[in-house]
Amino acid sequence: MDIATRVYNHKWKIDPIVRSLIDTDFYKLLMCQSVFRNKPDTEVTFSLINRSKAVPLADLIDEGELREQLDHIRSLSLSRGESTWLRGNTFYGKRQMFRSDFMEWFEGLRLPAYHLERRGDQYELTFEGRWPEVMLWEIPALAVLMELRGRAVLNVMGRFELQVLYARAMTRVWEKIERLRPLEALGIADFGTRRRHSFMWQDWCVQAMREGLGKKFTGTSNCLIAMRREVEAIGTNAHELPMVYAALAKDDDALAKAPYDVLSDWHEEHEGNLRIILPDTYGTQGFLDNAPDWLAGWTGMRIDSGDPAKGAEIAIDWWRSRGEDPMAKRVIFSDGLDVDKIIQLQQQFSGRTNVSFGWGTLLTNDFRGLVPDDALAPFSLVCKAVTANGHPTVKLSDNPEKAMGPADEIARYKRVFGVGEQERLKVVV
Amino acid sequence: MDIATRVYNHKWKIDPIVRSLIDTDFYKLLMCQSVFRNKPDTEVTFSLINRSKAVPLADLIDEGELREQLDHIRSLSLSRGESTWLRGNTFYGKRQMFRSDFMEWFEGLRLPAYHLERRGDQYELTFEGRWPEVMLWEIPALAVLMELRGRAVLNVMGRFELQVLYARAMTRVWEKIERLRPLEALGIADFGTRRRHSFMWQDWCVQAMREGLGKKFTGTSNCLIAMRREVEAIGTNAHELPMVYAALAKDDDALAKAPYDVLSDWHEEHEGNLRIILPDTYGTQGFLDNAPDWLAGWTGMRIDSGDPAKGAEIAIDWWRSRGEDPMAKRVIFSDGLDVDKIIQLQQQFSGRTNVSFGWGTLLTNDFRGLVPDDALAPFSLVCKAVTANGHPTVKLSDNPEKAMGPADEIARYKRVFGVGEQERLKVVV
Repeated sequence: MDIATRVYNHKWKIDPIVRSLIDTDFYKLLMCQSVFRNKPDTEVTFSLINRSKAVPLADLIDEGELREQLDHIRSLSLSRGESTWLRGNTFYGKRQMFRSDFMEWFEGLRLPAYHLERRGDQYELTFEGRWPEVMLWEIPALAVLMELRGRAVLNVMGRFELQVLYARAMTRVWEKIERLRPLEALGIADFGTRRRHSFMWQDWCVQAMREGLGKKFTGTSNCLIAMRREVEAIGTNAHELPMVYAALAKDDDALAKAPYDVLSDWHEEHEGNLRIILPDTYGTQGFLDNAPDWLAGWTGMRIDSGDPAKGAEIAIDWWRSRGEDPMAKRVIFSDGLDVDKIIQLQQQFSGRTNVSFGWGTLLTNDFRGLVPDDALAPFSLVCKAVTANGHPTVKLSDNPEKAMGPADEIARYKRVFGVGEQERLKVVV
Repeated sequence: MDIATRVYNHKWKIDPIVRSLIDTDFYKLLMCQSVFRNKPDTEVTFSLINRSKAVPLADLIDEGELREQLDHIRSLSLSRGESTWLRGNTFYGKRQMFRSDFMEWFEGLRLPAYHLERRGDQYELTFEGRWPEVMLWEIPALAVLMELRGRAVLNVMGRFELQVLYARAMTRVWEKIERLRPLEALGIADFGTRRRHSFMWQDWCVQAMREGLGKKFTGTSNCLIAMRREVEAIGTNAHELPMVYAALAKDDDALAKAPYDVLSDWHEEHEGNLRIILPDTYGTQGFLDNAPDWLAGWTGMRIDSGDPAKGAEIAIDWWRSRGEDPMAKRVIFSDGLDVDKIIQLQQQFSGRTNVSFGWGTLLTNDFRGLVPDDALAPFSLVCKAVTANGHPTVKLSDNPEKAMGPADEIARYKRVFGVGEQERLKVVV
């Protein structure tokens, strides 16, 4: 490193974890544009939820450091090069994916205020305001908390201990990649931004995937890495759309219709590989049973909770029942994947439909067992919309461990969406 | 890296493997000074000997590249800082270990010519001339051949394959260090210059040993690393002294006396921890049985061939038989060590004598099993004095697999030194 670089680095008050507004998931920007167009004035609250209560975040992370990192994110704005890339790049084969009015708004955006308070050994971290602004906090907030918790562990390690830690983690990632390499017709993307070990580590994983898997590596959900490494930006939509649409529903009839309203809005905007159904927000089986026929024309389905093999069987059966050929469709697995599960699902479903994988936390943060007390193991941290225009949101999913919302609202949603007994599966990440 | 550094690197015709005359073992310099004083005009031939015939060095290493590296070594001379360090540093507690006349000679030294010829799939590489000059070729010549063979394998690997290769090798070294850390009263030094993977790798291993073992890491045989990292330079003497002295002997009586003449010259020059007997050149048992009493007063014994536990028992028995207390003595193990053997020997002999280890190739070049066909596994390459003033040299050692010299001379030496049946042990490195 030259002297100027070193002196430049000294000028940083902190070592920022998130240094760009597009260091976020691509689907956030797609959804943000959709919200900006369809529901711009919705007032929402997003809240941090640590599903791993055994990890005492407020004991591990200094509140001052956390504020510095969050404040730094509030100082970020879209750079000229980032804007040019978003405006000019081809996403999913389409130019000008982001419209001018959205880009102008995004170029002027600063993230809104946050509310941070310690509660016992956890932090209460919430974001309130207009949906298109608040929603962009989710990914950077998670990445900051994950990385600050990691830094607390790394700070007390020696230089060679650190080298060997990363050597072991690199070896582990590469061994996973070597196991994936022989799989025929594999298509796998990095979905690991939110709970990554760090930006540099995610960037390393993406490059390793590219070198190790070639065309089988289909891209990354991280826009900044996609831009810098010139790989595809990957992602479509998430639970927050049906959750907020549902919370805004005036009555039970409107509630039952809400998840389809989301996809109807999406249908108007997007085609082809961006038409991916996320069916599990209020139970996959009921969602598909009651789905309008035009949805069967969509390209694929993302399986994000419950037993993934069962989910894929349900998808295939449903396409067949609607006269669609599953071999013309795509199933995207994205829930808690690691290499064993990927290999098993690929072998089970390739040849019956097109299979893709969105590999998240266990790609970009598998430091399990590498330090004493497993203090770097990833854990289940999320940041979700909890209210919309004052109404609480609800998520059921295909695994009751992932359900969220007030108990009475959960009961109402289960009734409205006809969700019965569900299999309870352990949530690791 | 800054632009100037990058441009500077472009100016290198080659990437030199050995960049300093003190990138060599400390004992070479001690022996060189002894030879410079006692036998300066001896004419010797040193020759490369690849004991691993299955490794076709001439197929793996380009002759032109080999010549470039050897030519580069011939262009080296002692730098001002290196000279200052050798003159001013404390070695084994002693200042001015190297006398002014030797240093003046060394400051003017360039290594003499080499003779290189391809023979089948091997190289014949020999060095002829005055002993104090020629002897300094041994370590850099071995390091060059080892590293060029490694580079041939590394050259075809991708960037991430390389990262992961080193990640695995680092992890392996660190796991070895972690296994050594709990050993009480451990004393271990790096002896791995000659068959190291590369200079940078050896340098890394030394730093890892220092961080991982603290005071249990006693230093390195490599002078350049000792200087730069400010650790102890370690080493005393080697087989080349008795081998050349023996070859110069006029008759069988003089031959029988030769190994003791070496140590008599050494006795005049050095004290304390530098008085380490290397007893195995012509069989340990006979050497000790016939040794003069003053040798029993020496500080320790280095076990460098045969079964190391047996060698240590012989040493302990011999000290007792000469009225010496083994707890006041030191046994240094240095033959083909790896961590299992180190732990076993430490547990077996600590408490009965002082134990040290000189850990060589399996510290600085354990890349076994890390690439296909085990193409980076270390192998048994040596560079030895083969003639002195026209007479062939002979080495027997305590393992017939390590014996060298013409058959009739080997028979004569066995007779003169009373060497009978010997246990044959596989030589790995």
